[in-house]
Amino acid sequence: MKKKNKKVNAGILIIGNEILSGRTQDKNIIFIANWLNSKCGITVNEVRIIPDIENVIIKNVLSLSKQFNYVFTTGGIGPTHDDITAKSISKAFGVKYEYQKEAFKILENYYGKKKFNDGRKKMAKMPRGSKLIYNPSSAAPGFKIKNVLSLPGVPLILNSMIENCKKYLIKGSKVQSKTLNVYTVESNISKQLGLIQKKYIKFVDIGSYPFFRLGKIGVSIVSRSTSLNKLKKVNEELLNLFKLRKIKILKT
Amino acid sequence: MKKKNKKVNAGILIIGNEILSGRTQDKNIIFIANWLNSKCGITVNEVRIIPDIENVIIKNVLSLSKQFNYVFTTGGIGPTHDDITAKSISKAFGVKYEYQKEAFKILENYYGKKKFNDGRKKMAKMPRGSKLIYNPSSAAPGFKIKNVLSLPGVPLILNSMIENCKKYLIKGSKVQSKTLNVYTVESNISKQLGLIQKKYIKFVDIGSYPFFRLGKIGVSIVSRSTSLNKLKKVNEELLNLFKLRKIKILKT
Repeated sequence: MKKKNKKVNAGILIIGNEILSGRTQDKNIIFIANWLNSKCGITVNEVRIIPDIENVIIKNVLSLSKQFNYVFTTGGIGPTHDDITAKSISKAFGVKYEYQKEAFKILENYYGKKKFNDGRKKMAKMPRGSKLIYNPSSAAPGFKIKNVLSLPGVPLILNSMIENCKKYLIKGSKVQSKTLNVYTVESNISKQLGLIQKKYIKFVDIGSYPFFRLGKIGVSIVSRSTSLNKLKKVNEELLNLFKLRKIKILKT
Repeated sequence: MKKKNKKVNAGILIIGNEILSGRTQDKNIIFIANWLNSKCGITVNEVRIIPDIENVIIKNVLSLSKQFNYVFTTGGIGPTHDDITAKSISKAFGVKYEYQKEAFKILENYYGKKKFNDGRKKMAKMPRGSKLIYNPSSAAPGFKIKNVLSLPGVPLILNSMIENCKKYLIKGSKVQSKTLNVYTVESNISKQLGLIQKKYIKFVDIGSYPFFRLGKIGVSIVSRSTSLNKLKKVNEELLNLFKLRKIKILKT
């Protein structure tokens, strides 16, 4: 990874009718978001899930590409008729959709010349100027063009490729987080929580999330910041608040 | 639900830093998409996941509200400082953010006058003109304003409220689907699959999704259409293809 930058952000574009129809539970968003956060200090600012429709892909790739430092797309880079991501991104950037020589060689070598049919060859077609994201599990590479990195939709394969994205990314400041789980209801602490958030508004982002555990209601208070120092201060204020209110803090 | 309409679509807007940060696995998209599909004949055309930032919420609510028949938002309608969905939607539509009388009564009754503090009162504030989406599990209602329906982010609570959205929706034609799971690889059938898709392009949407099961590689072929007749025809063509190619079909 290249030099450090303060704030680096990304958008994720999930391309696939199977997620929109409710057939498939997406697992790629949480995986990519966690990896970007923990390994690259990159924050995901927006996710979009869209169908396999060319003009919709073009519109959304361009929109996210302009707004964020990086765009990760998942899905639509296989051999079938509904795999139109590479072609659509070529059109979005006005570049030719053609065989990427290195990808062609990798796939030809993987399948053998005789079994390298048209469907398989299709997986070597990418926007002109693409660099490869190597695939250790099933050969067919992803690609990087401008600030867009395209990965497959199958989680197992995507997960095996993610480390190979690193060389194309500039590292940002890592967002640290602290979580306090307490047995109370949100409305009991909302006022004080709001005041603490206000005090640290420039440095720390405080989220409040209700949970149910073993029949009890609780709240997870999650503080997030690039400054560990500020995070500690917020944590101290929260601990004081809970002590004063005699609110029980869970150990896990 | 009101009269039948041919094609009815929706967008989903997930509002919450906890999903973008990778802390929480979203479970609302698949639930809402399945419910809309199966119970209302409404197709989800786009999903966006965005942070708890007012101008981002405003921009995205307006964008989705213009593009689709309905918008479902989840998250940000609780009592804490990071719950800014109702206020942001008020600003998006240029209406006052104020106590909704019925919601105020429901909450006052639920908590009792003495325990009805400011945090809890906040949950009765909504865009002027909102209608309520009743909440059987924790009282605090969601709301409907124009074509936007706002639900909470906690899946258990959201799930308990979804049926109460029905009266605000116009029913569309239900999309039926048929799935064939076969032991082959996509690139073995991609050409023929593409030809069948081309033949039925106006009526049936065919998706191809690789899977791994008990160490074997397979493909799920999912056909979707509002016409059961066309779906049957596609299924016959697929079965013929698999028979010719001696491709094994899984029973489940």
